Amino acid sequence: SSTSTPITATLFPGDGIGPEIAESVKQIFREAEVPIEWEEHYVGEQIDPRTQSFLTWESLESVRRNKVGLKGPMATPIGKGHRSLNLTLRKELNLYANVRPCYSLPGYKTRYDDVDLITIRENTEGEYSGLEHQVVRGVVESLKIITRQASLRVAEYAFHYAKAHGRERVSAIHKANIMQKTDGLFLKVHQLSIVAREVAEKYPDIKYEEVVIDNCCMMLVKNPALFDVLVMPNLYGDIISDLCAGLIGGLGLTPSCNIGEGGIALAEAVHGSAPDIAGKNLANPTALLLSAVTMLRHLELHDKADRIQDAILNTIAEGKYRTADLGGKSTTTDFTKAICDHL
Amino acid sequence: SSTSTPITATLFPGDGIGPEIAESVKQIFREAEVPIEWEEHYVGEQIDPRTQSFLTWESLESVRRNKVGLKGPMATPIGKGHRSLNLTLRKELNLYANVRPCYSLPGYKTRYDDVDLITIRENTEGEYSGLEHQVVRGVVESLKIITRQASLRVAEYAFHYAKAHGRERVSAIHKANIMQKTDGLFLKVHQLSIVAREVAEKYPDIKYEEVVIDNCCMMLVKNPALFDVLVMPNLYGDIISDLCAGLIGGLGLTPSCNIGEGGIALAEAVHGSAPDIAGKNLANPTALLLSAVTMLRHLELHDKADRIQDAILNTIAEGKYRTADLGGKSTTTDFTKAICDHL
Ligand SMILES: CC(C)[C@H](C(=O)O)[C@@H](O)C(=O)O
Ligand SMILES: CC(C)[C@H](C(=O)O)[C@@H](O)C(=O)O
Repeated sequence: SSTSTPITATLFPGDGIGPEIAESVKQIFREAEVPIEWEEHYVGEQIDPRTQSFLTWESLESVRRNKVGLKGPMATPIGKGHRSLNLTLRKELNLYANVRPCYSLPGYKTRYDDVDLITIRENTEGEYSGLEHQVVRGVVESLKIITRQASLRVAEYAFHYAKAHGRERVSAIHKANIMQKTDGLFLKVHQLSIVAREVAEKYPDIKYEEVVIDNCCMMLVKNPALFDVLVMPNLYGDIISDLCAGLIGGLGLTPSCNIGEGGIALAEAVHGSAPDIAGKNLANPTALLLSAVTMLRHLELHDKADRIQDAILNTIAEGKYRTADLGGKSTTTDFTKAICDHL
Repeated sequence: SSTSTPITATLFPGDGIGPEIAESVKQIFREAEVPIEWEEHYVGEQIDPRTQSFLTWESLESVRRNKVGLKGPMATPIGKGHRSLNLTLRKELNLYANVRPCYSLPGYKTRYDDVDLITIRENTEGEYSGLEHQVVRGVVESLKIITRQASLRVAEYAFHYAKAHGRERVSAIHKANIMQKTDGLFLKVHQLSIVAREVAEKYPDIKYEEVVIDNCCMMLVKNPALFDVLVMPNLYGDIISDLCAGLIGGLGLTPSCNIGEGGIALAEAVHGSAPDIAGKNLANPTALLLSAVTMLRHLELHDKADRIQDAILNTIAEGKYRTADLGGKSTTTDFTKAICDHL
């Protein structure tokens, strides 16, 4: 066993099924002797004026300090005058890239068995600007904002990721035939210089292509094996990452990790908090577990990451212990125990 | 045989494979004794100042006069100072709804055999406003415009369509959790009154639901049978209609019809002009043929529409004559002849 100082990581168990699936992660990490100490934070009871949301400033400071964290599902409390918890995290921590590996799970059958791709989504601007107003009665407009800076940093991250993970190709997804300037900026920046193409030139070993979003979605459902790493503006990433999750079984199975300024990595399960089954020991912890694995990879703890990932995938492949969403009858704790046994 | 006056319809054979697949439609319509006379129009050689595109004013006048037309693929000539041909048609003819029936073709195997839905896309505004500019160096914005008028007319069309075609449910697709005002207007119009929900109330027999676009795409690839009629703003329609086409085999197989002000119906094949195989008698005319069938239904020539649609579907199902894109070896003319034999 290692004597090195443990790494401190922030943990947001989240709402609904969050605490149960977070418990599963903690148990498996203990069993695998991952050198991580969790610093747990919860959503506050009042709006914190410094974040304009129920997320406290202290919890954000924790991620900033630790530079690494894991987040369960958070249900934004209903009411006015505050920001969504997810959007607050993205904004305050400048989580500029949302990375979602998506691959067919051996033994878990869907219509597709050949998915193995990564979606990398610009996570801070585009259609999520929040700038909207009524122009005149009955006419409303919203602004999509694309900046050279954000396009550049997500494009650079995508190529960096492709290279580091031995991937062969990056596809930039756009609708520059219609939004010539905004999506054009993402691809090329007409009046300025080059963004995705500019970055691509620095990676001659990695193939680069540009695909229009509508065509991309058609190709994804026909033949997802055509794709490797996809990089795209915010809303297209929102749409395509969910589409891809659907190909392999849904958001309960796909990991996600947000990369922020200053080397921050905040992994998260992107599914909902499933209040209907909360507290009933029925939740599937797979998405949070696989997200935790992406966090380990970010920390370059590849041995631990491999071991845990294999145990998860083998448990699912074996098929003896599966939660209800995967057609099984296991409880969260039984499924977790089965994974521990596979370690 | 009928002695009633034939209906005049505008025909844009289009570019590339357009003339060949248009010939196939003409032949099958003759064989089925459809009482239609075609008025053919071609893309002009110079920019027509009245349309700001290569599409001539006379060709638009033809559609306005006939109120019904069929359009093959048009490749927008490269160059500056003119509008895309597709967008010009939508704008000048106020083609406010793009209707795409999408169903699994018996005998033509894809990963899905249970698709039977209709996408209805708002076709004139949203992200297609064309309003984009650079704010400062490196910052570009584009405007998404949603109006009550356009939302209302497409929502009304969707419910009208659902009722007329015996459909059970309309799903409005949106991202109002992010674009509360623009997509919110499409759904509900906060400050004004109700649009999709308002229209839904007038159709108590038709179920109404609202689905967020990312979730919609995930559900579509997992279980498309969940959907019936989908209505949505412009860009979401662009994306989702192509995704749905992918489920059943691609744009070569899906019909499309644009509904415009004053009762105009312009049916079109939405696939490209495939210049690589143009003139080689290899093109698949199915999308244009099925589009022509939607035109017949619009004209309430249901007997002819049924007869032709059955002949097309039976030819494909039989599998003896299929074009290369469907894995067969038939020429366009052989496939066309096979359909005529099935009439
Ligand atoms: C909940 C919602 C605001 C969020 C988004 O649109 O980004 C979600 O769909 C996601 O992908 O994380
Ligand atoms: C060619 C392009 C401008 C067009 C669109 O984006 O509307 C196409 O994708 C379509 O769906 O008809």
